Amino acid sequence: MKKIAILNGPNLNRLGKREPDVYGDETLADLEAKLRADIADKEVELIFFQSNHEGELIDKIAELDDSGVDGLIFNPGAFTHTSVALHDALKGSSLNTIEVHISNIYQREEFRQHSLTAPASLGVISGLGFNGYRLALRHLLETA
Amino acid sequence: MKKIAILNGPNLNRLGKREPDVYGDETLADLEAKLRADIADKEVELIFFQSNHEGELIDKIAELDDSGVDGLIFNPGAFTHTSVALHDALKGSSLNTIEVHISNIYQREEFRQHSLTAPASLGVISGLGFNGYRLALRHLLETA
Amino acid sequence: MKKIAILNGPNLNRLGKREPDVYGDETLADLEAKLRADIADKEVELIFFQSNHEGELIDKIAELDDSGVDGLIFNPGAFTHTSVALHDALKGSSLNTIEVHISNIYQREEFRQHSLTAPASLGVISGLGFNGYRLALRHLLETA
Amino acid sequence: MKKIAILNGPNLNRLGKREPDVYGDETLADLEAKLRADIADKEVELIFFQSNHEGELIDKIAELDDSGVDGLIFNPGAFTHTSVALHDALKGSSLNTIEVHISNIYQREEFRQHSLTAPASLGVISGLGFNGYRLALRHLLETA
Amino acid sequence: MKKIAILNGPNLNRLGKREPDVYGDETLADLEAKLRADIADKEVELIFFQSNHEGELIDKIAELDDSGVDGLIFNPGAFTHTSVALHDALKGSSLNTIEVHISNIYQREEFRQHSLTAPASLGVISGLGFNGYRLALRHLLETA
Amino acid sequence: MKKIAILNGPNLNRLGKREPDVYGDETLADLEAKLRADIADKEVELIFFQSNHEGELIDKIAELDDSGVDGLIFNPGAFTHTSVALHDALKGSSLNTIEVHISNIYQREEFRQHSLTAPASLGVISGLGFNGYRLALRHLLETA
Amino acid sequence: MKKIAILNGPNLNRLGKREPDVYGDETLADLEAKLRADIADKEVELIFFQSNHEGELIDKIAELDDSGVDGLIFNPGAFTHTSVALHDALKGSSLNTIEVHISNIYQREEFRQHSLTAPASLGVISGLGFNGYRLALRHLLETA
Amino acid sequence: MKKIAILNGPNLNRLGKREPDVYGDETLADLEAKLRADIADKEVELIFFQSNHEGELIDKIAELDDSGVDGLIFNPGAFTHTSVALHDALKGSSLNTIEVHISNIYQREEFRQHSLTAPASLGVISGLGFNGYRLALRHLLETA
Amino acid sequence: MKKIAILNGPNLNRLGKREPDVYGDETLADLEAKLRADIADKEVELIFFQSNHEGELIDKIAELDDSGVDGLIFNPGAFTHTSVALHDALKGSSLNTIEVHISNIYQREEFRQHSLTAPASLGVISGLGFNGYRLALRHLLETA
Amino acid sequence: MKKIAILNGPNLNRLGKREPDVYGDETLADLEAKLRADIADKEVELIFFQSNHEGELIDKIAELDDSGVDGLIFNPGAFTHTSVALHDALKGSSLNTIEVHISNIYQREEFRQHSLTAPASLGVISGLGFNGYRLALRHLLETA
Amino acid sequence: MKKIAILNGPNLNRLGKREPDVYGDETLADLEAKLRADIADKEVELIFFQSNHEGELIDKIAELDDSGVDGLIFNPGAFTHTSVALHDALKGSSLNTIEVHISNIYQREEFRQHSLTAPASLGVISGLGFNGYRLALRHLLETA
Amino acid sequence: MKKIAILNGPNLNRLGKREPDVYGDETLADLEAKLRADIADKEVELIFFQSNHEGELIDKIAELDDSGVDGLIFNPGAFTHTSVALHDALKGSSLNTIEVHISNIYQREEFRQHSLTAPASLGVISGLGFNGYRLALRHLLETA
Repeated sequence: MKKIAILNGPNLNRLGKREPDVYGDETLADLEAKLRADIADKEVELIFFQSNHEGELIDKIAELDDSGVDGLIFNPGAFTHTSVALHDALKGSSLNTIEVHISNIYQREEFRQHSLTAPASLGVISGLGFNGYRLALRHLLETA
Repeated sequence: MKKIAILNGPNLNRLGKREPDVYGDETLADLEAKLRADIADKEVELIFFQSNHEGELIDKIAELDDSGVDGLIFNPGAFTHTSVALHDALKGSSLNTIEVHISNIYQREEFRQHSLTAPASLGVISGLGFNGYRLALRHLLETA
Repeated sequence: MKKIAILNGPNLNRLGKREPDVYGDETLADLEAKLRADIADKEVELIFFQSNHEGELIDKIAELDDSGVDGLIFNPGAFTHTSVALHDALKGSSLNTIEVHISNIYQREEFRQHSLTAPASLGVISGLGFNGYRLALRHLLETA
Repeated sequence: MKKIAILNGPNLNRLGKREPDVYGDETLADLEAKLRADIADKEVELIFFQSNHEGELIDKIAELDDSGVDGLIFNPGAFTHTSVALHDALKGSSLNTIEVHISNIYQREEFRQHSLTAPASLGVISGLGFNGYRLALRHLLETA
Repeated sequence: MKKIAILNGPNLNRLGKREPDVYGDETLADLEAKLRADIADKEVELIFFQSNHEGELIDKIAELDDSGVDGLIFNPGAFTHTSVALHDALKGSSLNTIEVHISNIYQREEFRQHSLTAPASLGVISGLGFNGYRLALRHLLETA
Repeated sequence: MKKIAILNGPNLNRLGKREPDVYGDETLADLEAKLRADIADKEVELIFFQSNHEGELIDKIAELDDSGVDGLIFNPGAFTHTSVALHDALKGSSLNTIEVHISNIYQREEFRQHSLTAPASLGVISGLGFNGYRLALRHLLETA
Repeated sequence: MKKIAILNGPNLNRLGKREPDVYGDETLADLEAKLRADIADKEVELIFFQSNHEGELIDKIAELDDSGVDGLIFNPGAFTHTSVALHDALKGSSLNTIEVHISNIYQREEFRQHSLTAPASLGVISGLGFNGYRLALRHLLETA
Repeated sequence: MKKIAILNGPNLNRLGKREPDVYGDETLADLEAKLRADIADKEVELIFFQSNHEGELIDKIAELDDSGVDGLIFNPGAFTHTSVALHDALKGSSLNTIEVHISNIYQREEFRQHSLTAPASLGVISGLGFNGYRLALRHLLETA
Repeated sequence: MKKIAILNGPNLNRLGKREPDVYGDETLADLEAKLRADIADKEVELIFFQSNHEGELIDKIAELDDSGVDGLIFNPGAFTHTSVALHDALKGSSLNTIEVHISNIYQREEFRQHSLTAPASLGVISGLGFNGYRLALRHLLETA
Repeated sequence: MKKIAILNGPNLNRLGKREPDVYGDETLADLEAKLRADIADKEVELIFFQSNHEGELIDKIAELDDSGVDGLIFNPGAFTHTSVALHDALKGSSLNTIEVHISNIYQREEFRQHSLTAPASLGVISGLGFNGYRLALRHLLETA
Repeated sequence: MKKIAILNGPNLNRLGKREPDVYGDETLADLEAKLRADIADKEVELIFFQSNHEGELIDKIAELDDSGVDGLIFNPGAFTHTSVALHDALKGSSLNTIEVHISNIYQREEFRQHSLTAPASLGVISGLGFNGYRLALRHLLETA
Repeated sequence: MKKIAILNGPNLNRLGKREPDVYGDETLADLEAKLRADIADKEVELIFFQSNHEGELIDKIAELDDSGVDGLIFNPGAFTHTSVALHDALKGSSLNTIEVHISNIYQREEFRQHSLTAPASLGVISGLGFNGYRLALRHLLETA
């Protein structure tokens, strides 16, 4: 059975409360429900994890790498733009990672225009809301 | 019946021949076949267009905008990084556009790190090969 | 009889449809009508040309240069900010050129703050709407 | 009766003496005469003011704003490139301002390529000599 | 009863020991005593929290936001200059926040000249020592 | 008796009229009234001065330095971002200066992100409206 | 029989008319005559093509690549400095390309100091007038 | 008895698994064994600590500073390039610190060219593999 | 009889009081006395002027230019680094100007490393204290 | 009889040994042999000189300038990118100089992208191996 | 018998005289004595060379490369930050090089923050005084 | 008897021949004659030295420092802008140095706008031709 992890970074536990005009009014629980519905009829295990702590995300990536996960869907949130350590964690793993952003980062502040983590991923989906996670999941299920 | 256009920019007519280690060995015709297969059982019209001419792409975007297309999947190729005119063409239209890149542009040259066209799109899918187009199509069919 | 050419660059064929809060709701045809009205009682030939193709604009500038035009009013649109080739076309001609922008480019995006074409013109009128073309026409008629 | 003010910044009192190859050999008095001739048959009051003092220009803008001037033609001279305070004075007023430069600033030194004051104006006319002021006056009379 | 939180970031637990020529020789306990003395006769609850962990600060901001705090006094320490995640945490909350710095950051290293968190606050008090916290407290009590 | 000077720079005489969404609708006279009320029962002399002229502000700083003022509250307005001369005037004096900004300059234009005058002050209060002056006054009365 | 193509970019059709102090007073026809004379006694086919249209140059490069050309002499003109698409066209082909510039680009404007196309060529000859083409031709005939 | 601490930052727990071509195939346990062997006949206590959490590293530095450690060997990993907070932690301590990097950071990505932590250390050893730690240990034993 | 003007800019009226470790403890009056002593036996008129007002310095330069001064010794103080208007005033005059700085500006802050006024002068003497003015005077008397 | 000098800069004495994948496996002696063969039947004197010393190259350029050399072929090696002094030596001479690089410097490190010496030469040939020297020689023989 | 060379660049012959607060008061002779003492009981030949001439250092590196040296300890002094030629000399050799700096270059001027030579070395030891050379020697003896 | 050294850097041996419109048509011998004439009646020893070799200039500075020279007049020529090693040589000496430039470097190329050597000198005289050396000599005789 395939295992896919969905990792969310800082402030994404606030989805639904936080700047709903940017991030929408659905919560992480809503996201989990949608993704579980999408694989209802498939042999897939989904692993959800969210943390506001860069160190916990690094620990989790190492743990997932050791546990034989088939793919990783990662929204590093603000760490996208500042964390060399997460870049290194991904680069040092053998995970098939897709980076996802809910909003279109190209329409936002200057300091969100660059991704430190994206070079260590397969690719990036940005600006398609929760659907970004769903498309990433389909991609990983079809290819990983 | 929904109409979705797939627009490819400069050098993408060379897919299959051009730097296959970066872009794979499948051609634009292969892409078209895949996308048509994906919608085989759906009421959707697909419009394909490729050009190496920035002006023709601008003309086409205006034409699609006028003709009531429901969504646009656009791989601007090298124009992603240099064309303010395509930015303006997209911004001036009411098209729901998803920008697609076959390769992960974050792993490439410095001059490919910035997208002038992305701020005028809904979002971007980068690095997932031809699957990027297929995911964009699914997104547009589900949301546009 | 004096000959004055009015050259419009990319996306300006979309005037009236495109971002009317920025560019107003009048069309290129309206512009032509206004300028023709302005010279109704004068011995002047007006030549209108619009293209979304950088190459066609370069071709046209060479053609106008050869045909003895007395003045050129040029709105290079987005090419203002990206086209060294249009700079060279103007520089290599003996045309008296005034660059016109409908909107005040100083109030817009960072990438619109610089003009590559302006150093090859007599001067620039920016931010005065269609009136910018009319003032440029008066200037050329009085001085060219 | 309409009131239009013509404000000239530092060193423009030296017109005619100062670098005639750049600024021509006519004086501010010649400019005033031309503009007065242009409105000879119109109901317009023209107010002329020149100062080399940034503070006096700020004071004058405030005074003009309070006195119900219909339009302002402003050549900030060198302050164009250095004065945030004049930007703020214009931004804080309700004046319809057109920025005018006698020479084409795009053909000059690097430090003259940017305008701090232009974002606080309606638009800019640059490089058309004294005619720039005349065109600005016509624009304001027709629109302000 | 009003509730005001005082949040201190990395290395501020070392106050009194750390570079006393820059930060003084008083401790966080001294700060707490001063602020409690200031509100001795007022109906105010003060909540103190310090952490060297960016993630804990993000968690705490979310918790304070949920618990109906009336105002936040935040010294993000070194995270001021590096943390987009704390910017997002503040921006995503509805807290009235004042950023406080003990030393005058404008007199220090180049990398301390920019604040990523300040745009997400009401304002900033910098360089006034512990008094900065006290002034922030007065401001929040009078306005929040 | 303590003497505290309150110095306001360019365009601050326009408070109440100028961009009220940014600076509020109260005037400098309102500010003076508030500060005088704050010290109604104290032995303090307040000196108010506003000028749009950089030179007058430099002259005044020298005069205040010679006259034994105990503290200076200085809002340099736009000169904050452009005046090395005011930096030198403050640096060359022995005044205890607090820089005050009504709005949060970190939320504004790029050219307002840097302060040339702040390194020559004790500290900065930004974004707290007129209260910024009042807090600065309290700080100077308690410490200067 | 060897085939060598000579490709000239924007405004090079204006040679002889355009800025003769920079580019000389000979025309493209003169260039063709010289190169044909150089190979008069050799078994070589020369293919000449000039266009002001970036898209046509991209199309032509693809066509030449498919038709088994032995070498390409390419003067991209102004596109040297702006066209990622031509970089990609060359990179994606298997052509042996030598970039040629008539003038010494190192003695010209800042925006001509960088070449986007050169990294996709074998080498560059700059500043030797029409002789640059002739030397490139000799090199290709001897090595390609 | 001397006490020397060896502190390793993010992802260094993955040594041996992570990018072995860059970091070698030995583990942190191997490093510890080597260093313990080096001091087998000396009166020295070695303290090992690794964390992926910036906050834990800051906490540990404070704890080591309080506990009278004679020297610190610190490989901050990716935090070298991003953490002002670790800079401050070291600067605020009285520890004799040597920064160590396993790989030669000068041969790697642009974002690894700068060290924020190095100015707060005695010196840096980079590119000598595990031997870098051993040399640092010898230096501290001889000098601290 | 030769006429030489000595012009001093902002804060130089504070010499002797202002940062004596940088500027020495002699006053402008001391400088005047020294220079007058140097020309005691010569037919030279010296004109001294100091102002903290950029506008007054511009006015004075124009006045000196009109009055037939043989040479100008100018210490623009902080305006050296910020005033395009003074650059223009000098450039627009026919004065033989030597720029003088008391301190060695190359040993000071980053923002004092560039001179906007120097390109409009004959030359610059920096770092030689009051002697700089004396050497400039000798040079002008020998050459102007 | 014509005299042509061939000057090679630092490390070019190591040709054949040094990074043969970049510079080939032929030596300077091989180069000399080739060039001598090329002019076997011509009335030309060739002067060869190599040095790793910037000063010796400057001395040699002066000597060649005095001795009536008809042309100079100069590969400044690494000094291309760092030596203003060689720029000045060339600029100050009346030599007809062609700069040659064996490798295509546009395909190499960032610090090799700019040439300080090229603006003081007629032109540049880069990336054509030893043939670059041979083409430069032909050009100089035909034109110098 | 192993051979190790110790190469010192510009101004290092002045050790003991030159800025002793930065570089200590020991001389190069002291350094040589220390290193010779360190290998007193080993079969190692040490070669010492110092020069203020970049060219001599390049010559020496080539000579050492040819003579079969086992390792090189190189303090390039100021050339660290300016010499592409020394980078090339090291890169073109097969020497095992360790770059050594006596002071911690990260605590010094901006222009000392970057090393052009380090990418061509095994690694760097900086800030540990003469001990840096001794540690480098041990490393080379153990590994080269 | 006082000893003053006059040191001239690269290409200054070419004075009189080299770009006479920039550097004049007098030679170094003329300069020496003038300076000797200036001190004809004084007890001063003048030492002249010119070199195109950075290393020889460094050697000479060390030698002069050891020999008890009272002052140094140094025109580093192009090394002004590139030599950290000469900066270090001056900084490491106890020489009273005045940097002299014949031309006004502020009117020249961008790469001549910064001086690496000036921060290690007392001051700089630029743009006054040979008189710059004479003024420097007078200053050193009066003060050193």
